[in-house]
Amino acid sequence: MQAWVKTARAPGGEIRKLPDPTPGEREVLIRVRASSVCGTDVHIWDWNEWAQGRITRLPMTLGHEVSGEVVALGKHVQSLNVGDHVSAETHIADGTCYQCRTGKMHICEHVQVLGVDRDGVFAELAVLPEMNAWKNDPKLDPALASIQEPLGNAVHALLPEDAVEDIAGKSVLVTGCGPIGLLAVAVARLLGARRVLATEVNPVRIDLARRMGADRVINPVAEGATALRTIRDETDGRGVDVAVEMSGHPASLRLAFESLTAGGRVSLLGLFDSDATIDLDNAVIFKAARVHGIFGRRMFATWYQVRGLLERSELREKMAAIITHRVPLGELPRAMELIESMQAAKVSLEARW
Amino acid sequence: MQAWVKTARAPGGEIRKLPDPTPGEREVLIRVRASSVCGTDVHIWDWNEWAQGRITRLPMTLGHEVSGEVVALGKHVQSLNVGDHVSAETHIADGTCYQCRTGKMHICEHVQVLGVDRDGVFAELAVLPEMNAWKNDPKLDPALASIQEPLGNAVHALLPEDAVEDIAGKSVLVTGCGPIGLLAVAVARLLGARRVLATEVNPVRIDLARRMGADRVINPVAEGATALRTIRDETDGRGVDVAVEMSGHPASLRLAFESLTAGGRVSLLGLFDSDATIDLDNAVIFKAARVHGIFGRRMFATWYQVRGLLERSELREKMAAIITHRVPLGELPRAMELIESMQAAKVSLEARW
Amino acid sequence: MQAWVKTARAPGGEIRKLPDPTPGEREVLIRVRASSVCGTDVHIWDWNEWAQGRITRLPMTLGHEVSGEVVALGKHVQSLNVGDHVSAETHIADGTCYQCRTGKMHICEHVQVLGVDRDGVFAELAVLPEMNAWKNDPKLDPALASIQEPLGNAVHALLPEDAVEDIAGKSVLVTGCGPIGLLAVAVARLLGARRVLATEVNPVRIDLARRMGADRVINPVAEGATALRTIRDETDGRGVDVAVEMSGHPASLRLAFESLTAGGRVSLLGLFDSDATIDLDNAVIFKAARVHGIFGRRMFATWYQVRGLLERSELREKMAAIITHRVPLGELPRAMELIESMQAAKVSLEARW
Amino acid sequence: MQAWVKTARAPGGEIRKLPDPTPGEREVLIRVRASSVCGTDVHIWDWNEWAQGRITRLPMTLGHEVSGEVVALGKHVQSLNVGDHVSAETHIADGTCYQCRTGKMHICEHVQVLGVDRDGVFAELAVLPEMNAWKNDPKLDPALASIQEPLGNAVHALLPEDAVEDIAGKSVLVTGCGPIGLLAVAVARLLGARRVLATEVNPVRIDLARRMGADRVINPVAEGATALRTIRDETDGRGVDVAVEMSGHPASLRLAFESLTAGGRVSLLGLFDSDATIDLDNAVIFKAARVHGIFGRRMFATWYQVRGLLERSELREKMAAIITHRVPLGELPRAMELIESMQAAKVSLEARW
Repeated sequence: MQAWVKTARAPGGEIRKLPDPTPGEREVLIRVRASSVCGTDVHIWDWNEWAQGRITRLPMTLGHEVSGEVVALGKHVQSLNVGDHVSAETHIADGTCYQCRTGKMHICEHVQVLGVDRDGVFAELAVLPEMNAWKNDPKLDPALASIQEPLGNAVHALLPEDAVEDIAGKSVLVTGCGPIGLLAVAVARLLGARRVLATEVNPVRIDLARRMGADRVINPVAEGATALRTIRDETDGRGVDVAVEMSGHPASLRLAFESLTAGGRVSLLGLFDSDATIDLDNAVIFKAARVHGIFGRRMFATWYQVRGLLERSELREKMAAIITHRVPLGELPRAMELIESMQAAKVSLEARW
Repeated sequence: MQAWVKTARAPGGEIRKLPDPTPGEREVLIRVRASSVCGTDVHIWDWNEWAQGRITRLPMTLGHEVSGEVVALGKHVQSLNVGDHVSAETHIADGTCYQCRTGKMHICEHVQVLGVDRDGVFAELAVLPEMNAWKNDPKLDPALASIQEPLGNAVHALLPEDAVEDIAGKSVLVTGCGPIGLLAVAVARLLGARRVLATEVNPVRIDLARRMGADRVINPVAEGATALRTIRDETDGRGVDVAVEMSGHPASLRLAFESLTAGGRVSLLGLFDSDATIDLDNAVIFKAARVHGIFGRRMFATWYQVRGLLERSELREKMAAIITHRVPLGELPRAMELIESMQAAKVSLEARW
Repeated sequence: MQAWVKTARAPGGEIRKLPDPTPGEREVLIRVRASSVCGTDVHIWDWNEWAQGRITRLPMTLGHEVSGEVVALGKHVQSLNVGDHVSAETHIADGTCYQCRTGKMHICEHVQVLGVDRDGVFAELAVLPEMNAWKNDPKLDPALASIQEPLGNAVHALLPEDAVEDIAGKSVLVTGCGPIGLLAVAVARLLGARRVLATEVNPVRIDLARRMGADRVINPVAEGATALRTIRDETDGRGVDVAVEMSGHPASLRLAFESLTAGGRVSLLGLFDSDATIDLDNAVIFKAARVHGIFGRRMFATWYQVRGLLERSELREKMAAIITHRVPLGELPRAMELIESMQAAKVSLEARW
Repeated sequence: MQAWVKTARAPGGEIRKLPDPTPGEREVLIRVRASSVCGTDVHIWDWNEWAQGRITRLPMTLGHEVSGEVVALGKHVQSLNVGDHVSAETHIADGTCYQCRTGKMHICEHVQVLGVDRDGVFAELAVLPEMNAWKNDPKLDPALASIQEPLGNAVHALLPEDAVEDIAGKSVLVTGCGPIGLLAVAVARLLGARRVLATEVNPVRIDLARRMGADRVINPVAEGATALRTIRDETDGRGVDVAVEMSGHPASLRLAFESLTAGGRVSLLGLFDSDATIDLDNAVIFKAARVHGIFGRRMFATWYQVRGLLERSELREKMAAIITHRVPLGELPRAMELIESMQAAKVSLEARW
């Protein structure tokens, strides 16, 4: 089979001809129908500092967002059949650690990540553990099926485990409208939020945020110090009930906390290049704020929510709009470029070479 | 002022000319702009067994669902002004009991109910405690504003306090499509439910349930034993995640529990004429089901949710459709008749005599 | 090896000589160090109506509560070693159903139960799935280690999943002081309950309930109608915050609901011989009560709690007191008799024949 | 009456003879039986930077922790009588803002604090709003009754609103053993924590932390980089489930997050002199940590918990041990000195002049 392989501790990757993989006893082999590019893939492609520290195993097939059709089963697989359409949950958990045994498999102590710790999915065929192969409605567009994982991130950030208060009738701020932020805007809208506000600087994404249903998209660079006032004006002067930080940008972090009403909650998903500086007294303590670190998706409570939400055509249409480019998998370098130049929101990779 | 007054321990009521009431120190006087009829009002009008045991104070002005304009303030009122548009929260709490002091004011130990324990709102003017006068968007149609309380019941049943799991992407069954059941269908739809199923026998309400967004409305009398299978077929064979019992009918109660997936939850709001018979082992224990008794609305967490949801035109339009009849308040007996004959869903009372 | 085997669809069982079992790939073989008798074992021994309907696979080794030492590993076992001391979680889950994938493995759709659906542990050797072999502190008395499962039931009933409110400073009523009820009293005490009340009729158990730390043990038959008043007097007239129903008796069920303060919660664990009759309006709806069906233990959140609590010598001493009899496994019929004649609380089975 | 009054925008305070105060309509007048000194009082006494910015109203009677006997009632008081023994909840809420109306009165938008925004309790008599006068068991030692408020802080930090997971069987770390930290150690012990670890540098407090029941007290200055290893060794290598930050010290904050197991939670109560620096990626996001800002106590869910816990003689004895000094109120400057010189844990003020 053909696959995009990282062969050297340097930027880029190359197409290699590899033997077809064989699934282990509790694994399945899938024929890739669509895949998509995540920010992590770009970091590994670019071989940035994080990637240099994190990636230890080369050569390695790249990629983790995927949907495909099951073409072979390991001998102990119980819950899947050849012909099933599946997507991947990227986090491969050990199933036996403290976290796995207490309903927190997504933060497994020994988690392995597809395309980071083991061979990924930018290939003609890929192997997935049975547990990580999520069965889809066969009628679901493979391109949408492939971006269920970032959709799961967005749902998880809005509805973390142990969040007693949902977002029905609440005000929500999403800081940063990359693909996950855009999906968060769309999902918040779908879940009955009263007001959905977003921040973003890139014009393509600002436009998309509006299409996702944001009541107002604030450009924090352009608005500067008035951004906070705008948010308060939109929320009866109280601030938002829920802030979802998707940018990893210090100024957005500050805005998220300042915008929060007392007793509100903040979900942090965007990663920060360096230590953050927070006025904990005013941002968290006096406000009795709750902060949720968001990593991955609940396995698999979030996936069931995602499946349910995907039955709404309104959401499928919005997801399709986020896929600004569809590129053959064989042209992966072009996909990388589209993302790095900020022209694209989500790039879908078609199973063509 | 004119008011509909229950004067005798017998069916019916009469229009009386009463002195204009004066608000107490922490009360407001409102001019009624719209009111609406709840099942409780019908019981009191009919003077059924429940009413005979419950009502002790006559003569008493009837009614509790209302919206109006503040026309006078008690001297210690802080949060309202003359001219504000308000609706009533019917449950008047003492503010100092265990329940009130622990966030459960809606089940205050000494709760007093408008139109049940003290003078109600089917009148030209009405007095409300400041705490119970909920400020509305002045642009909200007074008829819709008056039925916020049953809307709050529906939201509360779907999202009870202490329900960790919301209904995003979940399957929901609503048994019984009176006005609150219909609103529950509409709200479940608005909150991102995957599948909304409903049961009802009355053709008018069956039709309305479909307009509210039910994926499927089951007539349990017509379908009989196949109703359960229908529900399972609609839910991957698993049953629903959330059942909301609005009918007070033993067969619906049984269906609600039988339809529930293991680990699901049931909200009980409909009142039962007599003791219920439940197979607790299979309905609750082996299933690890949770059951929530639903009384009133969270004061005022639910009201804030209601306010937020009412900003969606989709919901306002559905609420308007539930108001099958608009009748002058002076013709209250006709409104009662429309409800008792099952011709109406919700009857709105216009402030005309 | 020797084992107690149910050989016929009739009361009783017999000691058989069986070949030593071999663990599957993800199973372990243990040498039994202690086991104990649960009510379910008695039902199967007696071949009562429930057992006749439930048990389909004979011959079958009896028993499910056990502790032992790992003596052999299946080839894919990762988290255990020969020599480890383990107890059994009786519920063998499939790991792939909706419930298993959403943190509710204890109510797996295809759960198999040791000693009910497959060979149990009243034997010299027993096979456990790796997932179900819970590693113990090797210093823990094997007899106590064997009754961790009912201890888990008690902890689960007091702290169900999704119970936002714990029992710190709360009033708790335990109806029915069989072994699990007794453990619930001890645990409630350990978790900072303000008042722990219990009901029981058997004098041996009444005495034990006091030793577990109950502030007051009520004999509902002797006290009759005053039982409710006693409970209210002990709780500032308000009733208890948490009721834990362990008896399966209709009168206890009624008392549990009547004793509950508005907004309180009830856990149901005791099984009922027939349908229960409940005044839902007053017991659940007007009170805004929550009801939790309790089946098994959270896998494995409850087990971690159990491990933590077992570090307290106070709890270990109380557990030891509940073991009223220690009988050689070879004399199982005598153990059954001790339980049926209500002389025993918990009977521990020593690994002697 | 005599009272300690802050008269000038400068360090210190003075005893003044003031007219006896009169309670408003929903207020009570109490005769002070005991009071106690909180860190906030020291800041105001010292007139530090925070106090200079926060205090606007002079002259003002100092102090807020108090217990006393009701000696006069405002005319609309319903729930208290002359002769009742009460303690003060210091946060005076408006009752009508968003936070107050959604069960978060402790973070009222317009909160007024006794001894900060209005006259306090270091006096012979004091006025409290009815709502803020918490009725005590008359047998409770007035000195202990006065420190219920910091006890409430400790309980609140361990059991925040919306914390689905309690601490039964969990590992807990308390960083900083001032009076609230010490109480947190004692309460964690009382609630069935598996392991209670604490950090502290002051020898008096280290000794007290042990008496409160800490399994291990770590001196982070003496232990340095090994502190983290010690904590992991005490917790099966996993880290603690719950960290409670009581010190306001940057190094403790870092240790609290580093010690946390993935999926654990941190409560922040100690205030920080300046912005904190946090590695959010590793401390919060990858760990899926939850952070709770803790301000005051839940009004009044925490108070009911406190009342329940205070029935345990074990806790009362520990609280008494924390009161290292009992000083006449007339000698307030000496009390201040004892605290500032770190000789005291909690200083109780006797009602003598």
